[in-house]
Amino acid sequence: MAKSKIIQPVKGTRDYYPELMAVRKWLYEVAALVSSAFGYQEYEGPLIESLELYAAKSGDELVKEQSFVFEDRGGNLITLRPELTPTLARMVAQQQNQLTFPLRWWSFGPFWRYERPQKGRTREFFQWNIDLIGSDSPTADAELVAIVASFFQAVGLSPDEAQILVNNRYLMEGELAEIGIQDESFKDIFRLIDRRDKLAPLKWRDYAKDLGLTLQQIDQLEELLRNDDLWQKSPALQGLFPAVESLGVGGYVRFAPYIIRGLDYYTGTVFEAQAIKGDVRRAILGGGRYDNLLSDVGGNQIPAVGFAMGDLVITLVLEELDLIPTDIKTPAASILVTVFNEDSLQESLTLSKELREAGLKVACYPQADKLGKQLKYADKTGVKIALLLGPDEIAAQKVTLKELSSGNQETIPRAESANKLKRMLDLD
Amino acid sequence: MAKSKIIQPVKGTRDYYPELMAVRKWLYEVAALVSSAFGYQEYEGPLIESLELYAAKSGDELVKEQSFVFEDRGGNLITLRPELTPTLARMVAQQQNQLTFPLRWWSFGPFWRYERPQKGRTREFFQWNIDLIGSDSPTADAELVAIVASFFQAVGLSPDEAQILVNNRYLMEGELAEIGIQDESFKDIFRLIDRRDKLAPLKWRDYAKDLGLTLQQIDQLEELLRNDDLWQKSPALQGLFPAVESLGVGGYVRFAPYIIRGLDYYTGTVFEAQAIKGDVRRAILGGGRYDNLLSDVGGNQIPAVGFAMGDLVITLVLEELDLIPTDIKTPAASILVTVFNEDSLQESLTLSKELREAGLKVACYPQADKLGKQLKYADKTGVKIALLLGPDEIAAQKVTLKELSSGNQETIPRAESANKLKRMLDLD
Repeated sequence: MAKSKIIQPVKGTRDYYPELMAVRKWLYEVAALVSSAFGYQEYEGPLIESLELYAAKSGDELVKEQSFVFEDRGGNLITLRPELTPTLARMVAQQQNQLTFPLRWWSFGPFWRYERPQKGRTREFFQWNIDLIGSDSPTADAELVAIVASFFQAVGLSPDEAQILVNNRYLMEGELAEIGIQDESFKDIFRLIDRRDKLAPLKWRDYAKDLGLTLQQIDQLEELLRNDDLWQKSPALQGLFPAVESLGVGGYVRFAPYIIRGLDYYTGTVFEAQAIKGDVRRAILGGGRYDNLLSDVGGNQIPAVGFAMGDLVITLVLEELDLIPTDIKTPAASILVTVFNEDSLQESLTLSKELREAGLKVACYPQADKLGKQLKYADKTGVKIALLLGPDEIAAQKVTLKELSSGNQETIPRAESANKLKRMLDLD
Repeated sequence: MAKSKIIQPVKGTRDYYPELMAVRKWLYEVAALVSSAFGYQEYEGPLIESLELYAAKSGDELVKEQSFVFEDRGGNLITLRPELTPTLARMVAQQQNQLTFPLRWWSFGPFWRYERPQKGRTREFFQWNIDLIGSDSPTADAELVAIVASFFQAVGLSPDEAQILVNNRYLMEGELAEIGIQDESFKDIFRLIDRRDKLAPLKWRDYAKDLGLTLQQIDQLEELLRNDDLWQKSPALQGLFPAVESLGVGGYVRFAPYIIRGLDYYTGTVFEAQAIKGDVRRAILGGGRYDNLLSDVGGNQIPAVGFAMGDLVITLVLEELDLIPTDIKTPAASILVTVFNEDSLQESLTLSKELREAGLKVACYPQADKLGKQLKYADKTGVKIALLLGPDEIAAQKVTLKELSSGNQETIPRAESANKLKRMLDLD
């Protein structure tokens, strides 16, 4: 029979072989560490939601163009979740009378967006989400910004390498009003501002003209987006910046009037972290305040602030800067119990059991085979020490330890092997 | 405005509020511990796959009736994965020339099946998958069975409470042939055997008659399914049972000729773990050998064995037996820094930062508020110690520690607070 073609994965998904999985796991663990240092609890929502949940406020692009939407066997419109915040709002709204606010919750899970896959972007990806719900204080905004900065510190990103840019939508709305832009245009103008980095300057001005801005308004808008002192007119930002300083991470944070973020539900303060070293400036994460989303999904009005960080861009950035620790890619087992022959198989199994009971990570070769082949296997899979258990060792209640890096071997009493192995592996 | 209705979650999904998330996290951690003790590496596949991947061998029920299938925006038929094994087979087939066999891999992730939600069954659920690929030895089968037993030991399930029932499909095929059943009927008869526990005895016999069995064959089949010595005719099981004994878990394992499992791709040994105490006998997990699946998805023929355990039934069983540890549901933060007034806010933030840097989990109240309200919040969220930082404390470089359980409080130098808190929280 001719060899058939291997069935292909879905475009834009990733296969997490153990080496790649170790990186995602490490990101998760750093996120967990930072989240719990600030007193946040882990939660998770369903991975599918009804389309209605996003239709409210996530924005047309996300819902109409980028979502995986399908009808289930019961005829309901289901969405592979493109983001977590609406789910969080729903979950909090459902238990608003039982929960104690302010609530600090974090999560790390999969999301989907139907976009063209490219470097730093897949259709299935993972995101760290973290939110503080039930406080409208600028200190809450500052706490989320400080969590971003603490994450950067934890992975070794310096303020020269990553920055958190902060703005406030209310501030910008006030300024837009002052240059004669009407309320009903704010959404469009925010989209325009959000595109400033994505379009060439002349194209951007054309886009602005298409939205009905006069040349004077465009000039005024450009001036606004360059004004680094504008934050002083925002009470929320006047509260945020000193708090960020008190939290010891002022060096990572600065005001940037051109940061708007794409989601329609953001209300006041918004922020975006960017990698600023290396080939390209990249948005690592975005966040902001969404004081109306809980009421939009049917709950009471409860103020909230949070951010989401995808796993792809941060991984690229950390790879470029060589900041992913090498020791996270641990071998499967540190110890391999070899099998001398059919007769000794049961003794090898029992030895592996004894060592596991002593807390060691032990693989046992699953059948009798040439010793050379078993040792080669041990070497290729990163095993540190192979154990040999032939008829002589079994008779004498001994075992031979072979260190693969040096080739040195030593025969010791079997009863002492667990402790000896722990010493050799520095596990004491 | 009338209060709008809260948008509902999708039927058959679960909201993992922190308390429920803690249970899933604990299951994950026990699975991780056991998996790595046996030298398995963590991996993960995509959560969506092309329908084609399952069409091959997962079985009609799973693919045609229970899968969430949809067309993506590009017109491809996508499936929310109903199980992991076909993905694993695909991933291994893709890298069959680079990987070192035998391969030991495990995973813990979400799956979907469109079934009627009921106790112990949701449409979105989580599963621990663990597989050994590249060995056809009965010792490999025994290792997977021993992993199940080690998991049971780790969560505190005794052999009186959970059993692993083992059978072999080749053995049964031989026996079926002996009573005159043709090869092409094996699949139907396996389904019949698999339904034995799910149908009333008379209904089951009717089902057997409908499949064309004679009354004599039905009697012979029933006798087969009661024959506890049948395993002695299977070389694979003759290898498995002694190995399970050597691995120290013989007490959990027994032969059961009526265990077949529902997936079409299983070849030789199959097994199922059942909870045998409590109200209902429940299947906790199922597994078996699938020596042809890798070639079915387009790779070389590589023997493999593994199992999958859903999170729902095991959680129900452990809840019924009161085996879920209470200390896994940890509070968000053990320490709350209170905020005396607007003027002291920045000092409170700085204190929280200092304590986090010392490795403590610290929430800071996000704004000035009545102290009573802040202490009530601390109490309700499980905080152990509240820190008070008024003008006097700030001036004297001191801080007041209030233990919430006793109400005792003590004012100490701020520089000593981190160490004192660690002692109070037994973190030293």
